[in-house]
Order: sequence, then structure tokens, then C-alpha cells
Amino acid sequence: MSRLVMKFGGTSVADLERIRRVARLVAAELATGKQIAVVVSAMSGKTNELVAWTDGAGRAAQGLPDSDDEYDAIVASGEQVTAGLLAMTLRNMGINARSFLGWQVPILTDEAHGRARIEDIPPANLDAVLNAGQVAVIAGFQGVTAGGRITTLGRGGSDTSAVAIAAALKGACDIYTDVDGVYTTDPRIESKARRLAKISYEEMLEMASLGAKVLQTRSVEMAMAHRVPVRVLSSFVEPGEAPGQGTIVCDEEEIMEKRIVSGVAYSRDEAKITLLGLPDHPGVSSQIFGRLADANVNVDMIVQSRARSADTANMEFTVGKRDAVRAVEIVRKAQAEIGFEDVAVNEDVAKVSVIGVGMRSHAGVAQSMFQALAEKNINIQVISTSEIKISVLIDAAYTELAVRALHAAYGLDQL
Amino acid sequence: MSRLVMKFGGTSVADLERIRRVARLVAAELATGKQIAVVVSAMSGKTNELVAWTDGAGRAAQGLPDSDDEYDAIVASGEQVTAGLLAMTLRNMGINARSFLGWQVPILTDEAHGRARIEDIPPANLDAVLNAGQVAVIAGFQGVTAGGRITTLGRGGSDTSAVAIAAALKGACDIYTDVDGVYTTDPRIESKARRLAKISYEEMLEMASLGAKVLQTRSVEMAMAHRVPVRVLSSFVEPGEAPGQGTIVCDEEEIMEKRIVSGVAYSRDEAKITLLGLPDHPGVSSQIFGRLADANVNVDMIVQSRARSADTANMEFTVGKRDAVRAVEIVRKAQAEIGFEDVAVNEDVAKVSVIGVGMRSHAGVAQSMFQALAEKNINIQVISTSEIKISVLIDAAYTELAVRALHAAYGLDQL
Repeated sequence: MSRLVMKFGGTSVADLERIRRVARLVAAELATGKQIAVVVSAMSGKTNELVAWTDGAGRAAQGLPDSDDEYDAIVASGEQVTAGLLAMTLRNMGINARSFLGWQVPILTDEAHGRARIEDIPPANLDAVLNAGQVAVIAGFQGVTAGGRITTLGRGGSDTSAVAIAAALKGACDIYTDVDGVYTTDPRIESKARRLAKISYEEMLEMASLGAKVLQTRSVEMAMAHRVPVRVLSSFVEPGEAPGQGTIVCDEEEIMEKRIVSGVAYSRDEAKITLLGLPDHPGVSSQIFGRLADANVNVDMIVQSRARSADTANMEFTVGKRDAVRAVEIVRKAQAEIGFEDVAVNEDVAKVSVIGVGMRSHAGVAQSMFQALAEKNINIQVISTSEIKISVLIDAAYTELAVRALHAAYGLDQL
Repeated sequence: MSRLVMKFGGTSVADLERIRRVARLVAAELATGKQIAVVVSAMSGKTNELVAWTDGAGRAAQGLPDSDDEYDAIVASGEQVTAGLLAMTLRNMGINARSFLGWQVPILTDEAHGRARIEDIPPANLDAVLNAGQVAVIAGFQGVTAGGRITTLGRGGSDTSAVAIAAALKGACDIYTDVDGVYTTDPRIESKARRLAKISYEEMLEMASLGAKVLQTRSVEMAMAHRVPVRVLSSFVEPGEAPGQGTIVCDEEEIMEKRIVSGVAYSRDEAKITLLGLPDHPGVSSQIFGRLADANVNVDMIVQSRARSADTANMEFTVGKRDAVRAVEIVRKAQAEIGFEDVAVNEDVAKVSVIGVGMRSHAGVAQSMFQALAEKNINIQVISTSEIKISVLIDAAYTELAVRALHAAYGLDQL
């Protein structure tokens, strides 16, 4: 019998009326003869309330990493409530259901509290319940260590819970959210954005990393690693209405019609740091980026250029906005050693990317991008590429213009 | 090394500021060299919020008893949050602490969800933590079944958790609440009420059953059964201030100065049901009370009197106010069989009781009570007695007057 894991995020279970809507969607899938496990997030707003309390109890103020086990015990209670309420609501509709917390499944994780990684999900308990015809309603976002302490997987971890459970149960995974699929770009910026019927794991992974917030990066990695068929679709349907087809995230081979570019993503979460007048000799880069790596600052795009003075260079790189101040401090501290002249930060930048597995076999994709941006007089500050994506850093003011220009340039409005 | 379980109710942990106050009280006890376990309730109001959600999810509406396992999973999250927050706050003060949920201790219970009874508390996990000098912060009110499902002990169950844990740890138990001890009567009614330095288990049990709300009946039963020394004291003390002596609940033998009467209790939660014109023959009582017992209606006081007509009797008995309507329905259904003429309900009654182990060896206690009430022209409707208490049912309008008269009559204002 085929198995399906249905995942509902915080806005989909924000109140009792929405939980009833979720219950109806579960009932509809159950009626098709599948075995169903449901993964739920906390009611939207609840996690923030709980986190605020932990801040008030001194966690953030003192930055106590050794309190993260207690943080997890507190914050995990949000999903616990939703799982119980949905199980209760399903029973009220005559559906045999029961809730599972992370430790009851068990979802075994490492001990990295607050950002734990799933190590194993022994399927015996869930198998027994599903084979008995019960719906398993599982609290997302949480697990348990071998020592029996509650862990959480970090923000957005419920997607990862759902995909990992689908892998353990050898089932498919439907991620219900507040949009009805993955779009060629953000419909709030480009009204001609279109829903993709299918997208490959690799493309979805780039989209997620590059700013499309529909799925969490880790969950896509996990789906790709275990070849879990994932579908993204909307939970915001009226009673009796079907949730639509959504977008299927799958193996590249399963997508018949290949596109060169599948989507345009953007992110305003970057800051650009420029080091001026660097000595132009080997080892400088490793001096800089080694220090940043030691401090857990992720560096994304990097470009080095010759300065006006022939024997010095300029270096530009991007970090997450919240790391910018720290990155500058780290670099400044080592100014004498590295030997650069000055450092500048620009937070007024955006990263715009085009993604598509078709790039592998098509030349000229980058050229079309540069041309489309040039036609709109958009200056490219930094470029980075991978096999299936090209990202450019531009002035943030041009974000929407760039997204729309690229969306049109690759014909995404005519899919 | 001596061990102490400190229990804090919902009003004592209602917000982060109060949780910090609790943490200071814990620190002060720890400084005396004791091993400390703390039991906490949910922040006041939280349990009601969670219960309201379960009602909204259909629990109350449909009265689904089979959803009580989900009810427990949901409601237990309240204590989980408090336990984590207190552990975090203690660490912030430099005190080594960690939280325990019911399943982590484990507090093993039967499967009576919503009103589970504690069956066993294997002490190994708590022993290890306490012996390592850590403070164990335990979520009250909750346990776990042998099958690994969360249970709750029913309203006020945190007192029971605390006493049961003290029994398992072979320690004493301090119950912190919003009053500074057990009083000779309700100070809101009689300003001359005095705090008792000590009270016996038996007396406390009667006080709790008879309306004094300071300790939950089940927790006193458990303390008595395991001879756990319990102290009741106030958590509402200013920083640097000691919490006072409170009231010690202990063995009768440990109380040097015996009093004839220790306290006056009252309850307005009763309703009186009168059956008129009963046939006066054996078996009638068992017909009536058998039916009520089958329906789980607790009957408290009973009196039978000869009616005017020589061959019939009247029967008066009391039940809890919330059971009154149901009790009348049950009796009415069997009217033909039992053969009474009419049934009447009076909810406008109060039960006033005097309690004291000294009654066992002193005659005339009842006589003093009747006389004190007669002097105030208070009519006694029903009387019931046990070895250490006398209760009378009176018109509810006279409650305060009766309490004050009895308090004076037994010299309780001069303790």
C-alpha cells in the first residue's frame, strides 16, 4: 500500500478552523486508500512566543550555548500542541489517528541542540500504526538524543522532519504551504510568474539556497539524497475544493521537457565587503577566508581584481547581512598581518540568480543574462556560477527590474 | 545528604519575574547544602488556554473519552515550558540545573488519561542528577504510561507529583503557594484566623476534603501513606526575604501540644437532595445509593427521618453541586421502583466542619458546636461525623457567621 507524508506549516495550522481544513485534506487523501502520516509545525506565532520567553529567561542576553537543551525542551512544546489538536480533530471526524512526539517516533538526532541533525528514524512504531490503518500525526521540527533529551532541528526544520519520515517510511512527501507550488520567480515581483509542474532536486536546491523560501534547503538535500518524491502545494483551499497539482520535485530524468532556465531567484540578505589595496601575492586569500571560516562566517561570492596601483589588488566578497559587522571586525583585527589599505561594507546589494539544469548543455546562458541586465543599465558588481546557476550581485534598488528582465529574457512567462 | 522537593504552583511561576523569584528561593535552599528537586506547574492561565483549544478541537463538545490521550499530550506542554524556563533561569544564576519531563524521570502512571494515578517513580535518573550536584526541575502534573504515552494527573496534580517524587527520593516536600501556610480557617472570612505551625496528615486530609484549598486531597493521602514530611509556605516573598516557617504537615505524634480542634472548614459546593415519603422498609437505601454509585455520583452526608405519616420516611443527602441535576434524574427514573412521593433539591446550603485529632479523646466537642450555632440561631439541617471531624449542613447565607462563631467557640483565635 502506498504511503504519503503530508506536511503542514505554521500558517496552515494557525487556528482551530485551519486545523479542521487540514483534517479535511488528510481525510481526502486517506479516502484514496493510502497510508498517511502527517507532520505539523507549531501554530504560527507560537514558536516566536516561546523563543521570546527563553530570551527573557536569559538565553539570548547571556548567549548561553549550554542552555540550548532547555531551549529545545521549551520550543518543542509548540509542535506538541498542534499534533495533539490535529489528532483530536481527525478523531472527531471519525478518523482513527494518534499523535507522536519526536521521542515517541523516535526521531533520533545528534546532540547539537537548536540545530540538530537527524541520524536515524527506526520505522517500527510508525509502521505498526500505519499498518493498523491509523493516521500518525507527528510533531515536526523536533527529535530526541540517544540520551533521551529533546532536540530541535532549527527554523524550518519541519520540512526536514517530513522528508526524513517519508524516507524512513519509503513514501512520498507532500509539503502543504501558503503558495500552490514552486514558481518561475516570486509572483509578488513578476505577475507573469508561472507555476512549474516539475522541478529537479538540483534546481530546487539552488532555488532554496538562493532565496526562494518555499522549501528549506536541508529538506531538499535530504529528499535528493534519499530520492523522496516531494510535492509542494497549497493548504489554503475551501472545503470540497482539491488542493491543485502543485509542483513535483523529482529526479531530473523524470522531467520530460527540459528547460534551459527554470527560475529566477533573488535575495536581499547579502552584504558586500570590499578590501582595498591588498598585497598581490599568494596566501592572502587563505589568510582572509581562513579567519572568517574559523568564526563560522559563510562567504558566498568572491571576486578579486587588480587595483590601479600595479602591485596591489582589491577583493570583494559577500556574507549574510547579519554576519557583516562581525566579518568586518575580524578582517580589521588582522589588517596589519594581511596588509590591506582599507575595508568597506555595502549592505545595499541584492543577489539575482537564474537556475536551470539545461545550462549544462547550452552555451550562451550567461551571455543572455548579462545582455538582459545591460539593456536595463543594471551594473553587475560580482558574478558567481555553478553548473546549473548564474548569480550576479547588483545594486538592491534594481532587484525587481532585474528579476522581471531575466524572467522575460529566458521566456519564463511563456512556459 | 538531605533531599528536598520544592513545588511551585501556577501563580508562583506566572511570568518570568516570578520564575526568577522562584529561582532565588531554590538558590537559598541549595546554599544550605541540600540536594534539590523542583516541581513546577504551568504558568497560570496556560492550562486553561490549552484546555480551551482541546474544547475547540471537539473534545468537550462530543465528550470523546478516547481523545483524552491527545488531551494529555496537549495540556502537558504547559508544565514542559515552565520546567525549561526555570532550568534556564537557574543556569543564568550559575546553578547547575536541568529539566525533566514526566517521561524522562520517568513518572510511571496507569492509563487513565486526564486523571492518571502514579504507579512508580524509579529513582535512578533523578538520583544520578542530584548526586552530581545538579538541580532537577521536573514538570509536574504529568506522567507516562508503560506504552510511552503522556498522561496527566488531573487538576492540582502537581502537588501529587511533588509528594510522590519526595517519597521516591526519600526527601521532604515543600509546597510553595500563594498563602503562607495552613490557617485555622479562611482568613478572608475570619481575620483572627491563625497560621498553624503543625498539622497532622489526618487533619490536613479532612481540611482538604472539606473545602480548605491549600493542598490537594490526593497529595495529602500520598504524603500520609509514605510518611513524607510536607511543609506549606508562600513563594511571594521579596528578594532577600525568607519565606517564613509555613505549616508543617506531619505525623500526629510529632505534634507536641495537642489541640481539640485545629480548624474550621467550609464548602459551598454541596447540594441537598430530599426524598419525601419513602416506604420505611429495609433495602430502600441501597436501592437509591446503589444507583447513584453506578453513575459515579459521590454522596456525602445522609440522614433519614420519620415522616409525619407513621409508615413513611424522608431521606436527605448531599452531592456535589455539579452532580445535583444528574442525581435527581437518576432518582426520578427509579421513582416507581423505589416508591417515594416527591424529590426536592436545595443548592442554597453550605457545609461547615470542625476538625481536630483531639476529638478522639475529648467528649463534648459536638455539643459545643451545636451550642455555638444555636446561639446564633443557625439551624442544622444534616450532621455527619468521623473520628476527627464534625460537619453540619446549614443555610448558605449563614456560612460566614457560622465559621466565625465556631472559630471563637473553640478558642482558635487564641492559639
